[in-house]
Parts: sequence; C-alpha cells; structure tokens
Amino acid sequence: MTLTLIHHTFCPFSRAIRISFGEYGLGAEFIEERVWERRREFLAVNPAGTLPVLLDGETTVCGIRAIGEYLDETRGEGLGDRRLMPASPPARAEVRRLLDWFDIKFNEEVTVYLATEKIYKRTMRPEQGGGAPEAGLIRAASSNIRYHLHYIGYLTARRRWLSGDRFSLADIAAAAHLSIADYLGNVPWDSYGEAKEWYARVKSRPAFRPLLVDHVPGMPPSSTYVDLDF
Amino acid sequence: MTLTLIHHTFCPFSRAIRISFGEYGLGAEFIEERVWERRREFLAVNPAGTLPVLLDGETTVCGIRAIGEYLDETRGEGLGDRRLMPASPPARAEVRRLLDWFDIKFNEEVTVYLATEKIYKRTMRPEQGGGAPEAGLIRAASSNIRYHLHYIGYLTARRRWLSGDRFSLADIAAAAHLSIADYLGNVPWDSYGEAKEWYARVKSRPAFRPLLVDHVPGMPPSSTYVDLDF
Repeated sequence: MTLTLIHHTFCPFSRAIRISFGEYGLGAEFIEERVWERRREFLAVNPAGTLPVLLDGETTVCGIRAIGEYLDETRGEGLGDRRLMPASPPARAEVRRLLDWFDIKFNEEVTVYLATEKIYKRTMRPEQGGGAPEAGLIRAASSNIRYHLHYIGYLTARRRWLSGDRFSLADIAAAAHLSIADYLGNVPWDSYGEAKEWYARVKSRPAFRPLLVDHVPGMPPSSTYVDLDF
Repeated sequence: MTLTLIHHTFCPFSRAIRISFGEYGLGAEFIEERVWERRREFLAVNPAGTLPVLLDGETTVCGIRAIGEYLDETRGEGLGDRRLMPASPPARAEVRRLLDWFDIKFNEEVTVYLATEKIYKRTMRPEQGGGAPEAGLIRAASSNIRYHLHYIGYLTARRRWLSGDRFSLADIAAAAHLSIADYLGNVPWDSYGEAKEWYARVKSRPAFRPLLVDHVPGMPPSSTYVDLDF
C-alpha cells in the first residue's frame, strides 16, 4: 500500500516525517499543500488545517504527533534495533518530552518566526499575510535559538543522542527544525560545537539526504546547508 | 508506589491528568507549582518549565503528552474496556489528532487567554506579567470558543464520544480545557446544545468530581460550574 504525505517542503513537521520515511526505508508519494490558502478540500481532510497529513490506505493520520506514533505502531517492529522509539515507558517518556520541546517550544520560539517571515511570506498574497519580513521577529528567533543550541549541547555531552544512547524521533524532530534555520543561515554553529557535532551526525545519515536538495525559489541555501563538513 | 503530580489547579493539562487519575482509580499526591515564578528546583525537574510533571518512583515524566501515553503504557491494561486509548492504530491516531486539537489549538485560541488574563495575572507580580486583564484578549477567546463548541457538536452528532464510540483521552482533554472557561462563565452553553449534552455526560463522571471543588481565591465559579444539570 502506497503511503502519501500531504506536506510542505519547509514545514518542520513534514520534514521530520520525510526523514522518518528514510529511516524506515518507506517509499511515499508527496502532495504539496500551502496551508495559508485554506483550500476546502484540504480542510475536509484535516479540519485543523495543519501539516503534515499521512494517507495510508483507508486511514488518514493528521499531525506530527499522531503520524510519529502511528508509524511506530504500524511499522516500528520491522526496524528492530533501529526503531525510532525505545521500548521502555520511561525512555519513551523522555523521547516525548523532547518532541514537545522541539515541536512546540522550539517551533514557537524559532521556527515559526523564521519560516513565516523569510519563506512563507514570499509566496503569500497580502490578504493571506504576505509581505516583507519583520526584522524584529527574525532577531527574536536568532536570539532564542542560542538557548536551544546550548540545550542540545548539554544533552549530547551526557548522551550519544538527544534522548539516550540510541537515535530516536527526538533527534529527527530537533534536526528537522534546525534544518530550516540552517537553510536560512540563522544557526551560529561555530559558537556551539557540541550541537554542531550532533547535527553533523544526523545530517550525514542517508535518510536526511533528500532534504538537502530542497530549495526556496529565488533564495539559495546558506553555505552550511548542503555541506556535510560545515 | 505513590504517584506525585506537580500541577496547578487551573492548568488545563494538570486538570486532564487529575481526571485520568480518577478514571484509572489511581491515588496521587499533589504539589502545586506556580510556573511563572520559574523556581530553580522546578526547572531542574522540567527544564521546559511546563506543567504537569508526574513522578513515579525513579521516573519523571514531563508534559501532558508524555504523561498521557505513559499512564496508558504502564496502567492502561488494568482498565480493560475502560482503557482511555483505543487498541487499533487508526483509532489511536484519531485520539491523538484530537489531543492536538484541544491541547494546542484550543489552548492557544481560548484557554491561554482566559486563564492568563483572568486567573494567573491576579497572582503574578507586575514583573512576572501580573496586572489587570486585557479585555481584547478575553473577547478573542470568547469569540474563538464558539467555533470549538460547534466542532464538538459536529463530532458528537456522529459519535457517542469525541474520538469514537468509547470515552477516551480526547474527551478528557476537551473537558479539561472547557472546565476552565466554564468556571469563568465564558462558555455560551445554551447556543450549543450538543456540546452541552456531551459536557454534561463528562462532568457527571465520578472522575470529574474533584475538579468541581477547585476555586480561585476571591473569584467564585460561574453558576454552571458545579451544577451537573446546568
């Protein structure tokens, strides 16, 4: 059964699911959705109007949280040792704590500002919220990201991956959000060596590779974006 | 092993876990935390500074998402037919879609405005963000809540409970958020008969009862709050 992902190239949650597909070795078809157009057909599929949405045969799964857990429940066992969720409830709780950290906190404090101001507003019409980026919001994101890079360094100084000894959904979520800031040149990597070393490890995984060819029309990626030895 | 919940009486996520405890028949100890004070001891337990936090022996579980899943994983089977998460992955995906709906969307569009402006600001010092409520934000919440009450009615016209035929975490999340708006008298129940009928069913469950004695000092609940036949 073919999986279909309704997504957007620079939506951090959609990116996380694309990386997960690579880790699972799952093929999928992709449909791009511009949520700010609020198309009726899309809202009928996901009334919340959010991305991504996974179509798996008769099943529709809406949102990053539900999709991450659904893929683990339906395809996780096939991954064996490389499963993206650990087995024990306390370890799973730690992965989910970090998923909230990145998908809610990092998203609100960094990704929403950068993606909206620098990317989405370019393609939105004025009545959809389009226009010139607000410098104040980009400055806020650039300031906030430092605290998160520090926290990634704090974690990886104590653990091999963010949630523990094994690569997990938490690493995927964090890397998906950072990949957008990295594309835009808004990550001060050189001040955060531990976070940089961790990100280089995630970026060098084959599952990450499809993201490196994404591009915003008329806005080439930063010099670090495609470079695996940035 | 005694469970301990670090919570706040009018935090919607903390309320949802208290209702869950009742459904599970779990006893717990409670510690109230005022997150806006940003106490170092609390931030050492949950660096995100959010509520609730569950302490279960050696295990610390941070945040509504992780706690809901953790209780299901560690205590769910004991509930049998009354388990708060369904068994099949598509049905679980539907519960999680609705958890996002209420814990993210409803929270941002309604609960944060009402709880912050009307409750938290009363106890915050000026430098913590305290002060008089902003009428514009309360009006926004009062307008936004109508769309959510309509959606609850849409769902319960088609299903017995929000996520399907069985009571689930989705009903608990929705009721926890609505209970705060209800305390404050900000729910136009009479215009939304189906949502009201569903809420009356949730409110009459024994697990909900402990919430009905909560109160904000100096601000008694609305006339509908404690009334099971409102």
